[in-house]
Amino acid sequence: MARGELSTDDAMTRLARLPFEDLGFARVDHHRSLRGGPEVVYGRGKTPAETAAVAAALLDQGAAPVLVTKASAQHADAVREVAPGAEWHPRSELLVCRRAAVPADAGLVAVVCAGTSDLPVAEEAWVTAEAFGCRVDTLVDVGVAGAHRLFADAGRLQAADVLVVVAGMEGTLPSLVAGMVAAPVIAVPTSVGYGAAFDGLAALLAMLTSCAVGVSVVNIDNGFGAGALAARILAIARRRPSP
Amino acid sequence: MARGELSTDDAMTRLARLPFEDLGFARVDHHRSLRGGPEVVYGRGKTPAETAAVAAALLDQGAAPVLVTKASAQHADAVREVAPGAEWHPRSELLVCRRAAVPADAGLVAVVCAGTSDLPVAEEAWVTAEAFGCRVDTLVDVGVAGAHRLFADAGRLQAADVLVVVAGMEGTLPSLVAGMVAAPVIAVPTSVGYGAAFDGLAALLAMLTSCAVGVSVVNIDNGFGAGALAARILAIARRRPSP
Amino acid sequence: MARGELSTDDAMTRLARLPFEDLGFARVDHHRSLRGGPEVVYGRGKTPAETAAVAAALLDQGAAPVLVTKASAQHADAVREVAPGAEWHPRSELLVCRRAAVPADAGLVAVVCAGTSDLPVAEEAWVTAEAFGCRVDTLVDVGVAGAHRLFADAGRLQAADVLVVVAGMEGTLPSLVAGMVAAPVIAVPTSVGYGAAFDGLAALLAMLTSCAVGVSVVNIDNGFGAGALAARILAIARRRPSP
Amino acid sequence: MARGELSTDDAMTRLARLPFEDLGFARVDHHRSLRGGPEVVYGRGKTPAETAAVAAALLDQGAAPVLVTKASAQHADAVREVAPGAEWHPRSELLVCRRAAVPADAGLVAVVCAGTSDLPVAEEAWVTAEAFGCRVDTLVDVGVAGAHRLFADAGRLQAADVLVVVAGMEGTLPSLVAGMVAAPVIAVPTSVGYGAAFDGLAALLAMLTSCAVGVSVVNIDNGFGAGALAARILAIARRRPSP
Amino acid sequence: MARGELSTDDAMTRLARLPFEDLGFARVDHHRSLRGGPEVVYGRGKTPAETAAVAAALLDQGAAPVLVTKASAQHADAVREVAPGAEWHPRSELLVCRRAAVPADAGLVAVVCAGTSDLPVAEEAWVTAEAFGCRVDTLVDVGVAGAHRLFADAGRLQAADVLVVVAGMEGTLPSLVAGMVAAPVIAVPTSVGYGAAFDGLAALLAMLTSCAVGVSVVNIDNGFGAGALAARILAIARRRPSP
Amino acid sequence: MARGELSTDDAMTRLARLPFEDLGFARVDHHRSLRGGPEVVYGRGKTPAETAAVAAALLDQGAAPVLVTKASAQHADAVREVAPGAEWHPRSELLVCRRAAVPADAGLVAVVCAGTSDLPVAEEAWVTAEAFGCRVDTLVDVGVAGAHRLFADAGRLQAADVLVVVAGMEGTLPSLVAGMVAAPVIAVPTSVGYGAAFDGLAALLAMLTSCAVGVSVVNIDNGFGAGALAARILAIARRRPSP
Amino acid sequence: MARGELSTDDAMTRLARLPFEDLGFARVDHHRSLRGGPEVVYGRGKTPAETAAVAAALLDQGAAPVLVTKASAQHADAVREVAPGAEWHPRSELLVCRRAAVPADAGLVAVVCAGTSDLPVAEEAWVTAEAFGCRVDTLVDVGVAGAHRLFADAGRLQAADVLVVVAGMEGTLPSLVAGMVAAPVIAVPTSVGYGAAFDGLAALLAMLTSCAVGVSVVNIDNGFGAGALAARILAIARRRPSP
Amino acid sequence: MARGELSTDDAMTRLARLPFEDLGFARVDHHRSLRGGPEVVYGRGKTPAETAAVAAALLDQGAAPVLVTKASAQHADAVREVAPGAEWHPRSELLVCRRAAVPADAGLVAVVCAGTSDLPVAEEAWVTAEAFGCRVDTLVDVGVAGAHRLFADAGRLQAADVLVVVAGMEGTLPSLVAGMVAAPVIAVPTSVGYGAAFDGLAALLAMLTSCAVGVSVVNIDNGFGAGALAARILAIARRRPSP
Repeated sequence: MARGELSTDDAMTRLARLPFEDLGFARVDHHRSLRGGPEVVYGRGKTPAETAAVAAALLDQGAAPVLVTKASAQHADAVREVAPGAEWHPRSELLVCRRAAVPADAGLVAVVCAGTSDLPVAEEAWVTAEAFGCRVDTLVDVGVAGAHRLFADAGRLQAADVLVVVAGMEGTLPSLVAGMVAAPVIAVPTSVGYGAAFDGLAALLAMLTSCAVGVSVVNIDNGFGAGALAARILAIARRRPSP
Repeated sequence: MARGELSTDDAMTRLARLPFEDLGFARVDHHRSLRGGPEVVYGRGKTPAETAAVAAALLDQGAAPVLVTKASAQHADAVREVAPGAEWHPRSELLVCRRAAVPADAGLVAVVCAGTSDLPVAEEAWVTAEAFGCRVDTLVDVGVAGAHRLFADAGRLQAADVLVVVAGMEGTLPSLVAGMVAAPVIAVPTSVGYGAAFDGLAALLAMLTSCAVGVSVVNIDNGFGAGALAARILAIARRRPSP
Repeated sequence: MARGELSTDDAMTRLARLPFEDLGFARVDHHRSLRGGPEVVYGRGKTPAETAAVAAALLDQGAAPVLVTKASAQHADAVREVAPGAEWHPRSELLVCRRAAVPADAGLVAVVCAGTSDLPVAEEAWVTAEAFGCRVDTLVDVGVAGAHRLFADAGRLQAADVLVVVAGMEGTLPSLVAGMVAAPVIAVPTSVGYGAAFDGLAALLAMLTSCAVGVSVVNIDNGFGAGALAARILAIARRRPSP
Repeated sequence: MARGELSTDDAMTRLARLPFEDLGFARVDHHRSLRGGPEVVYGRGKTPAETAAVAAALLDQGAAPVLVTKASAQHADAVREVAPGAEWHPRSELLVCRRAAVPADAGLVAVVCAGTSDLPVAEEAWVTAEAFGCRVDTLVDVGVAGAHRLFADAGRLQAADVLVVVAGMEGTLPSLVAGMVAAPVIAVPTSVGYGAAFDGLAALLAMLTSCAVGVSVVNIDNGFGAGALAARILAIARRRPSP
Repeated sequence: MARGELSTDDAMTRLARLPFEDLGFARVDHHRSLRGGPEVVYGRGKTPAETAAVAAALLDQGAAPVLVTKASAQHADAVREVAPGAEWHPRSELLVCRRAAVPADAGLVAVVCAGTSDLPVAEEAWVTAEAFGCRVDTLVDVGVAGAHRLFADAGRLQAADVLVVVAGMEGTLPSLVAGMVAAPVIAVPTSVGYGAAFDGLAALLAMLTSCAVGVSVVNIDNGFGAGALAARILAIARRRPSP
Repeated sequence: MARGELSTDDAMTRLARLPFEDLGFARVDHHRSLRGGPEVVYGRGKTPAETAAVAAALLDQGAAPVLVTKASAQHADAVREVAPGAEWHPRSELLVCRRAAVPADAGLVAVVCAGTSDLPVAEEAWVTAEAFGCRVDTLVDVGVAGAHRLFADAGRLQAADVLVVVAGMEGTLPSLVAGMVAAPVIAVPTSVGYGAAFDGLAALLAMLTSCAVGVSVVNIDNGFGAGALAARILAIARRRPSP
Repeated sequence: MARGELSTDDAMTRLARLPFEDLGFARVDHHRSLRGGPEVVYGRGKTPAETAAVAAALLDQGAAPVLVTKASAQHADAVREVAPGAEWHPRSELLVCRRAAVPADAGLVAVVCAGTSDLPVAEEAWVTAEAFGCRVDTLVDVGVAGAHRLFADAGRLQAADVLVVVAGMEGTLPSLVAGMVAAPVIAVPTSVGYGAAFDGLAALLAMLTSCAVGVSVVNIDNGFGAGALAARILAIARRRPSP
Repeated sequence: MARGELSTDDAMTRLARLPFEDLGFARVDHHRSLRGGPEVVYGRGKTPAETAAVAAALLDQGAAPVLVTKASAQHADAVREVAPGAEWHPRSELLVCRRAAVPADAGLVAVVCAGTSDLPVAEEAWVTAEAFGCRVDTLVDVGVAGAHRLFADAGRLQAADVLVVVAGMEGTLPSLVAGMVAAPVIAVPTSVGYGAAFDGLAALLAMLTSCAVGVSVVNIDNGFGAGALAARILAIARRRPSP
């Protein structure tokens, strides 16, 4: 078995030196962007002012974009005072503060969405992936019950490097997609549904027990996590020398 | 809104007059076959002798077949002493005592099975349906991950009057099948799987929350129930005058 | 075992050719009515304008009725601009757009309802079944605790070709009804109840584990699914040549 | 609002004076029989010798019978060395040590049992009630699916002072019985069933959410508890002066 | 084993003859009061007008009181138009329509309540029991953590014929009370609590698994059911000849 | 707010320097005993040889005792070859390897056990606490149903510095004990019970939702964790200068 | 095994004599402060006037502080009329009525908080601990994902006598902290999170199954309980003579 | 938004033409290896002979390795008759049939394992990844409670392209690892643990709710799925032209 070639001492030392800033109500890492992704702030449970302060502190550092998830219009207004060009996506409550144009060369992410009701989660995924520099192809309202509509898109699905598949209710779309492609599939259960959907539990369990190879799952409604993971996966190709 | 045309008094009277026989440890209905289906005895929790006694009492009546579910080899041996020609299906632990040839004209039931591990439940369904007089077409190992294998069978699926779809793990297959056919789909979740399959719960919830129209669900591993229901559905066509 | 007589190639070809229309936020199938049922649009999570656009696209095709479930008054108003005669049922939030008189010859569906609180779900079932062309007989407030009230209706129950039985709380009505009839019973658990009813879970589990033969279950509160399934079942009789 | 007429000081004093005996591995109350019921020892998790020692200590006191629940044949053998006449019921694993004839005048308990598989729990209930001095009437295999069999017994049900109704699977029987009688119904869910029965959970929830008045529930498979409660209820009539 | 002495035919006949009245949206039994208890109407999910109509139909019959549970102020106003003297208890949302003075001679029910937050459920229990003709003694805020406060009331507890014990959170009060008395204990879990109380589930499970003899359980928050059951239990003493 | 007085650099440095030994299949810490407790090895899932190797590696270091939890007789034999005096407790499957006499001056731990069936877990707790140098007082079979037996021990309970209270079924005992003492109570739910006990879930929830102040909870059946925590708590008193 | 040295008789007598006051809607203990902690009143479900009455009754006794948890602004206003200096903490809805300066010598409690959203629960814990006379060090926003931020605080963590660790979502912070210190860790899961966090269940289970030694758990969001337990633990050191 | 460049018609045609072989009890795909991974056969529920037949059919095609999961020694013996060099790993019950040397150039996968008991699952992951052509670095027994042991390996962790992190009990390790690296983390919960671990549920929920970016989850104990997904992810880098 191979071993990594970085020495343990170096890693330990680097971790100890990683800077963070203490705002009193939050601690802000100033090294996360070194790892290739955007900074993220969870908006819920923070006041607009607190959110803006954290965002400003992050924007003072490096070049990566800063995302605020679960951002209300009030959060957006407060953050725009420190980041005037921030784009707010009301359907997914996602706020994106970019500092520089991100070259969209990270690879192609397909975001597939089972129904119109799943769009807020899907949008959170694709906006995140784009903020990370990925190209994105979106396919909306591709339910299992009308599988022929999915097969009509087989070419687009197979062209993607990574797929994010968003579905509520019975959550079977990821299994079906994974059987059609060779690329990894990130499954996102949503809380869309009623009755035995149990707020996303049915979709979550179905995705976890998928017989298809190449599927992994993130938390219910976690579009951000899926988009960010897609970008992390595509970053491998950039990081590694081509064979 | 229409009303049924049987008078209430008649129905009440008929119910009161329905015969049953008291064996001490069990009461045996002698009127169930009037309703068009086989008699069924749940073997588990009964001794072989008790099972044989119940079966014998039922066989003394009418012409319908008698089924014993969850029948061990010991049950089968005991019952064969009173019903020599009873067929025992070890994989599904189902015992069928027929008294007369049942004309197989009730219609065509397709029993579709997601994987080899689901075969015991699927077999319980198709043997039951055949005992009820249905013709049966079986499709085995038709997983979602290789959906093209399912589409290759679209013709067979669409030829069926009723479909029984058996699946464990994520339980996706009924949704997919229901999107391809106009006939009713009876979904049977199985306890096949591990981890988040939670002994059939994942498949059960997925089937209940299916977005496809025309799907209903029976208990986990209840192949008998699905087969019997398929036969009840097909009995409607026989009962009603053709338009 | 028999085989369906349609060739695989034909089925595959037909699936590939099935038309759909892409509205951007939704894809509209234009072939579903070929399968004998109404079109359905899930209203929740769609704007009134989006809902009306989908309904209009469906109404431009074929002759089948179009149903909008979970339709608010706003949805109804918007849809009526494209389908003036659409009937809105506020208790069940169901909107029905009919294009032509549907001859009510599909057979008789009995919709049985355990209590007054279950009426919204029961109404969704019976309006759906009627929209599909079924005759419907409704029995309301037929609880288990006063079983004599149920037995007084035995004649009406036994006259039905298919029964939809709606119940919350302990959900035992379907078992009782299924013991009185030979026709298939579609059980619909509702979220009516409190405490250990757990939003319909108690009724759902009771219905799934019913000892009665001929019972299958749809999702909690899914009156539409039950009504549509009843119509699919009755369509078999019309489709098949009478014996 | 009325008040009890015993003074607080008396009660406090009596509690402080209640005797118990310390066997090292268990403490034995010597006052429980004052409260009108038998002594009970939970056999599982105790060695036969420990069980016999506890039983002997209890038998040295008063006149009430001593019951050992979940008693294996080994437990029975050990206890019979100190209580030669103890009766062991293998199906319910219940051991009864009586010291004197108990006059069976406490009233009539009906023990109603849904299926043959529920018999071990039902037997635990009726043997317990008889040990407490109740007369018992047992009705076995009275399922909901054949409700007419239950109605044929309406007279026996209505003659009982208290009813213990034992059922697994969907657990419907107590609701149905309670709708036919004016006496209190003690519902006992059993772990009989499979799949969505979830080891008695389905029956438990159905019984707890029963719409029928007069139903209460004990733990899954707790036949002893139901029998003992029935006797406690009947003891009220003996204790109170008749009106 | 004894048998009830009413003949089967009689019972069957009486059930068939039990009258009910069909109001369209509800069916009203006119025989329930024969069984010794009040009529009950579940207010939630009924309009005030519907509620008043059902109450009026019931009041036209017999002499028993009529209760409306989960009755809002609007329900109360509507009902008072047909039953002017109806008493409304806002904390428990219980409405009581009495027609004649009920002689309070049924026996003594102690209603014990763990905390102030459990009062709405406890009140529903004691008002119901009183409406049934029971004398009631109430003990409020008797938590387990200060068990000495409970022991100070031992005399009052032991004077009761039946005890209703209401508790949320960990739900241990019924076990403790049952260890102090010989009378039956009806345990009522409440949804009071937070976190791992899971809306009453913790209390429910604790009460079901109580080691104390003589405890049975009703649904979470079901104060009415507990009060009505207490009255049914006490009715036995009146019905039976004293020994 | 106060701050700890150790500098951050020191802590970071010490953590980096903490030694461990790599056995291939396990890594052995050689610094844990610095923190005042015994070393612990989880026996289940390790072969006897692996277990002995880990134990030997730990025993080569420092003076603290080494415990092996879930140790079978085979584990015990293997370990005794490297630690001849190791004591094996079969009921709790706990193996204790002491190297030197531990002065029992850490304070007094009371281990209270609801029933005989809970003894294996309770023994694991008290043997662990003793191995840590605590004095232990054990009270066995002190159920809630006979609370007077508990009150008779009030003096012993109040003399303890820390209490470990072990109970299955409804898990009430910790609440009751906590109401009688001022010391912290560590509650240990056990998997003893059946039905709605759900393998310890009922007891766990009851303990978590206890209204009593001073109660915290460890995992189901985790006697070791409770004993070790008791010792950690008592170590504070030794570490801190007396006031 | 050692025994406590207080005699049983004394304890029994003292319990019987403990005073309480009956306010009608609540019973007020007047002896709890003897056990070393503050009085606590649960505000939710009590009117402001009731809350003030209970607080006043408690304040008339002894010298301990009185806390009202889940106190709204209305509660605070009402209580301040009887306790003018009461401090209200709106974020945690905690109200503290002190009567005299509490000397902060009980030891040092570290309250560690995973994220900003967990602050209300953390604040409830630290205000409670301070009211009990503990010194408190707070560490906010110390997530697992940036573990280096936690290690930077190792010195502060190791200086604490007791640690309260508050975390929602995956709830892993307590395990990590417990691996760095020798002091006991009280873990508080919070309901912060979404999806599979299931209102704190994920964090609760993670904390209960922690592999780290020295961790125990209180109810979800129960900051008060954690703070009060920390103070109880520290009271041991004061109570015991130093070695 | 970009679109894939394969035409829809091509994809549809290719899917329709994908070959499979019908063995009667199973259908064998002969195109899966085109998608870059090994063939996999789920051994459980298949006889050794059936398993060997499926493996042989797969081995007759292409060059990819064939894996049999959950393979007993009997399965291994049967398969070795058709694939003599197949390697069987008893701890993980994984059988690998390679046909040609796979050049290990797909990238570096780190498999990190929390405890010795998790080794079977971890081994399934690393053997699978190696069979797919990945280099693998394994880190065993890296618990959270001794986080310094993890930090000592920071260099090895950061050198990996993809990480598979396997943990039972509280399942914290993936969060901690994800906070230290920029590569994607595949979290595998295991069923190791007891009590509130609920057969892997605690670990599963903790991993799903992880606050760390870049984590996704597969089913409990699904080491194969994690290893296969790691290989799929690394295949992207090979497939895409380097930038």
